Amino acid sequence: MSTASRPEITAEVTEGVCRLLYHHEMACLTELRLGNGRRLDVLALGPKGELWAVEVKSSVEDFRVDQKWQSYLDYCDRFFFAVPMHFPKDLIPEDVGLIVADRFEAAIIRASAEKKLSAARRKKLLISFGQTAAGRVNKFSSKENVLG
Amino acid sequence: MSTASRPEITAEVTEGVCRLLYHHEMACLTELRLGNGRRLDVLALGPKGELWAVEVKSSVEDFRVDQKWQSYLDYCDRFFFAVPMHFPKDLIPEDVGLIVADRFEAAIIRASAEKKLSAARRKKLLISFGQTAAGRVNKFSSKENVLG
Repeated sequence: MSTASRPEITAEVTEGVCRLLYHHEMACLTELRLGNGRRLDVLALGPKGELWAVEVKSSVEDFRVDQKWQSYLDYCDRFFFAVPMHFPKDLIPEDVGLIVADRFEAAIIRASAEKKLSAARRKKLLISFGQTAAGRVNKFSSKENVLG
Repeated sequence: MSTASRPEITAEVTEGVCRLLYHHEMACLTELRLGNGRRLDVLALGPKGELWAVEVKSSVEDFRVDQKWQSYLDYCDRFFFAVPMHFPKDLIPEDVGLIVADRFEAAIIRASAEKKLSAARRKKLLISFGQTAAGRVNKFSSKENVLG
């Protein structure tokens, strides 16, 4: 049984997810503040402008208290939950993607159906993704953008 | 007369430019590798997806050896040269933008005409801007993208 704390598990799963998506040629931003007031754990941008959102659930309780995860669907073409190895996978709805991860590796267990963003929405998200990312690089753009 | 070296002047002007553009709500990436093989000093992304390219010229010699700056025009809606205070401004062609900067402040002396990127080109650049910026934040995306 893992003795890691919830933030530690979340950090480890997030790291595994980013590593995995990097091998899919996607660049990740973590802990994004969204226009709807929520935070998203990972948003990944692919070479054709694909946007995949990943929400990390460190435990069953963490998953159960999140009643509003559907609101993430407005920010991506595909949505995944990412959970640690010991998480009971049957809890995750079958129509969303599922990634199992620890710090060192991760695997896409199930891809979500793709629900493509509109061109206008994608452009808006590409702009805020770029501004937010550049803002984390450059000290003169340190204001965190709200995405989308 | 300044005793700063050419790289020092370039760094100082770049810093002033990023500070200035930040106040225009633009997020900057510096030292980008472009698809045409050249490097660009600053590319700034605005809230509506505007892309402004800025090439820093630390000295007259630095400006004179650059015979191919027109190739930057494929990467932006507006193009600017940025120069230090003591640079003879009359050397800069009148149809491009001009920023004068030091480390602490900068001013747009002349805006360039706007030549809007096509929608497809802009989308491609927004994607590589976002991937490159996120790659500089996230250790799992550390491969530098070539822009556009």
